[in-house]
Amino acid sequence: MNFFKNFSKKKRFSLVLAALLVVSLFLTSYVPSFAEPSRVKNVILLIGDGMGTEQVNLGRIYKGDELYIDKFDYTGTASTYSADPENKWVTDSAAAGTALATGVKTYDGAISVDLNQEPIETILEKAQKARKSTGIVTTTRITHATPACFASHNIDRGNETEIAEDIIEHEVDVILGGGKVNFIDKKDGGKRKDGRNLIEEAKNIGYNYVETKNDLKNINNGKILGLFNESHINYKLDRDSSIEPSLEEMTNKAIDILSENNRGFFLMVEGGRIDHAAHANDPGAMANEVLDFDEAVKAAYEFAKKDKQTLVIVTADHETGGLSIGANNKYEYYPEVLKGQRKSIEYLSEIITISNYKTLIKDELGINDLTEKEESEIILALGDKKKGDIFKVLTNIMNTRSNTGWTSTAHTGVDVPVKAYGPNAELFSKHLDNTDINRLAVLSMKLKR
Amino acid sequence: MNFFKNFSKKKRFSLVLAALLVVSLFLTSYVPSFAEPSRVKNVILLIGDGMGTEQVNLGRIYKGDELYIDKFDYTGTASTYSADPENKWVTDSAAAGTALATGVKTYDGAISVDLNQEPIETILEKAQKARKSTGIVTTTRITHATPACFASHNIDRGNETEIAEDIIEHEVDVILGGGKVNFIDKKDGGKRKDGRNLIEEAKNIGYNYVETKNDLKNINNGKILGLFNESHINYKLDRDSSIEPSLEEMTNKAIDILSENNRGFFLMVEGGRIDHAAHANDPGAMANEVLDFDEAVKAAYEFAKKDKQTLVIVTADHETGGLSIGANNKYEYYPEVLKGQRKSIEYLSEIITISNYKTLIKDELGINDLTEKEESEIILALGDKKKGDIFKVLTNIMNTRSNTGWTSTAHTGVDVPVKAYGPNAELFSKHLDNTDINRLAVLSMKLKR
Repeated sequence: MNFFKNFSKKKRFSLVLAALLVVSLFLTSYVPSFAEPSRVKNVILLIGDGMGTEQVNLGRIYKGDELYIDKFDYTGTASTYSADPENKWVTDSAAAGTALATGVKTYDGAISVDLNQEPIETILEKAQKARKSTGIVTTTRITHATPACFASHNIDRGNETEIAEDIIEHEVDVILGGGKVNFIDKKDGGKRKDGRNLIEEAKNIGYNYVETKNDLKNINNGKILGLFNESHINYKLDRDSSIEPSLEEMTNKAIDILSENNRGFFLMVEGGRIDHAAHANDPGAMANEVLDFDEAVKAAYEFAKKDKQTLVIVTADHETGGLSIGANNKYEYYPEVLKGQRKSIEYLSEIITISNYKTLIKDELGINDLTEKEESEIILALGDKKKGDIFKVLTNIMNTRSNTGWTSTAHTGVDVPVKAYGPNAELFSKHLDNTDINRLAVLSMKLKR
Repeated sequence: MNFFKNFSKKKRFSLVLAALLVVSLFLTSYVPSFAEPSRVKNVILLIGDGMGTEQVNLGRIYKGDELYIDKFDYTGTASTYSADPENKWVTDSAAAGTALATGVKTYDGAISVDLNQEPIETILEKAQKARKSTGIVTTTRITHATPACFASHNIDRGNETEIAEDIIEHEVDVILGGGKVNFIDKKDGGKRKDGRNLIEEAKNIGYNYVETKNDLKNINNGKILGLFNESHINYKLDRDSSIEPSLEEMTNKAIDILSENNRGFFLMVEGGRIDHAAHANDPGAMANEVLDFDEAVKAAYEFAKKDKQTLVIVTADHETGGLSIGANNKYEYYPEVLKGQRKSIEYLSEIITISNYKTLIKDELGINDLTEKEESEIILALGDKKKGDIFKVLTNIMNTRSNTGWTSTAHTGVDVPVKAYGPNAELFSKHLDNTDINRLAVLSMKLKR
């Protein structure tokens, strides 16, 4: 205390006062950063359709390495059940998409309308009101349930031609996916019956329109509509990568364009075909879809890492298939079986014949030691010319050899993963309801509720 | 700046110096609490044996409300695979228990020994070296794989009489569970063949020994050995609650006793029979075991909330059964079916006969509208007097009516949940390996590695 002895009593008092003042200034500038949620300029919400925790696990085991999803700081889980009076505990993608897009539970089949079929404002619409840029990116038809829920309202997910109109009317800045059929008339090979060509209409209101990966590369600003397939973009395994972009390529392009807005952006990215491969109980195709999705996660993660004002959320709308690594009362799993697979079983079932099956199964499924039982089942199914049967025989071979378990070809009520990175990510490290994810994202961007 | 004008230049300089000093002191006392992991005095590790994310989900749906596990601040997931050369991706409880107890992956069946069958120091042993108190609490035999891995070393989980000796030799302060048979000789109705009575031996080295819930209540300090069943403690549904304590009661007693040590404690609590009910594919019994475990989680959580120096970690060793809510290609789940169940199917299969089945199924399974098909299956199974068959018929009825899916009666490689509360809890909000959980717990208690 020698230091203080240099001062008179009065001065000492002043000195302490001054010190307290400095400490107070320090505290007021420092503490609020812990007390208040920090400002989130952009939100990227990535949805793996049908991607339960176990779909992620299979992707990881298949890759043989950590996924980009695993790099995220915070992890949670979410319940997915809907408000459907009939199917409460097992949701469809429309009710689940509505929950994520609006924070409201609704009936199965609803596209961002409530139980009374009234439209509910979506997070994308809220972001537009705040003059942020917006985007929807998916590997399914852009009018399919999940993307539809963010940029349209409809009482029935089946009304995809109406949904296409609604998406264009919303003037979403970046629209990338499949589903051209719902934008063009029957006479042009589409599904519309009203003579309209929504692609031309979109161009007229200022959209750049692209149909190929290369054309996509050349667009660097402005509104963009990209439809890379008549229906869904092909599975990663079946994709013509000279034409169809990967989900990562679409996501990177969306981020490039949207991040030019100083007010920020909201982007929804869907790995939409994880669900389809899971419905098909095709574990090899599914693992590849998870990895395709994970590359899109990487794109978002790496942008957010540099940007520091972007909250990235990864989740799923529901689980599909009741997947388990290991099944049939055996303590075994053989991921290497799936690694020989070069094409989806859906694709192979279309082209397999009694004369090509041996080559096909060797080259495309990586199996060169078909058992007598397997072979006789294949021959029987092909003889019957029932495509459904050969499909089942082939998936059964892959599931039995790898010892992959499925309880269903439909959705389940299994909890889904939640991963978050960036400012406010810590809010997601809990067991949440799917509607909470929407609310926390809206809150984080300080959008009007 | 008028304030500063009251001082001479020299004094002003000193004043600023003094202020800087105060701020520095403030910073050095304040900042490290963010930079370094905060001090964790106690760790309570709760393991739901066989409890995947979906087992938790079913518990929650069955309860119709949030679980105590859901209150935890941070959530993660963990991989469970072992280093077994044969069964790499689907672990047994011994290899998984060893990973959690020691941070080392090993072969299936190993009790805290490595691939060379050499003992590996456990977190409990490390805590003992730091003169902390220790406890193991379970609903299984105390010599069963999971608790065994924390307080013994053995090349084979089957050597439960040896494991019993090792646990007593470890002088673990609180030992509560089932499994009396492994502590006493054949002539006394036990499984030992060496004439030893480990219960008497334990008493001789200072243990209080108890066999009933009431006796447990009356012990308030000192070492305690409680064996409440010859083998496993009964399922919650079948428990004689006048004799057998709940997992929560055992956990609360353990915490009361262990927390008297000023140096802190390490406590392992296992909900051991979630796994058994899952192996049996008995969803009603399993949901009740999850809730029994969740009450123990509550006990740990409420202690930690007051104590503020306790890190509580909840996880599982592996998933069992490949469970899914919803199955069989239907978007349906009926948890209410399980709520009518009063006894485990294992228990009912023992006592059901052709003359009592109607009453039993009505009173104990809550079913008063057996279909003709169900009834004929029951009669057939009972006529054959094959207990296995009636067991399968009854579980099948419950699973079909509730639409619960299982892919196996064995373990799976499904990722398990991780939940953490208290200081350092944020470290667990990631996808972890099971060995990381051990390492983070050891690190948090600053035990010698």
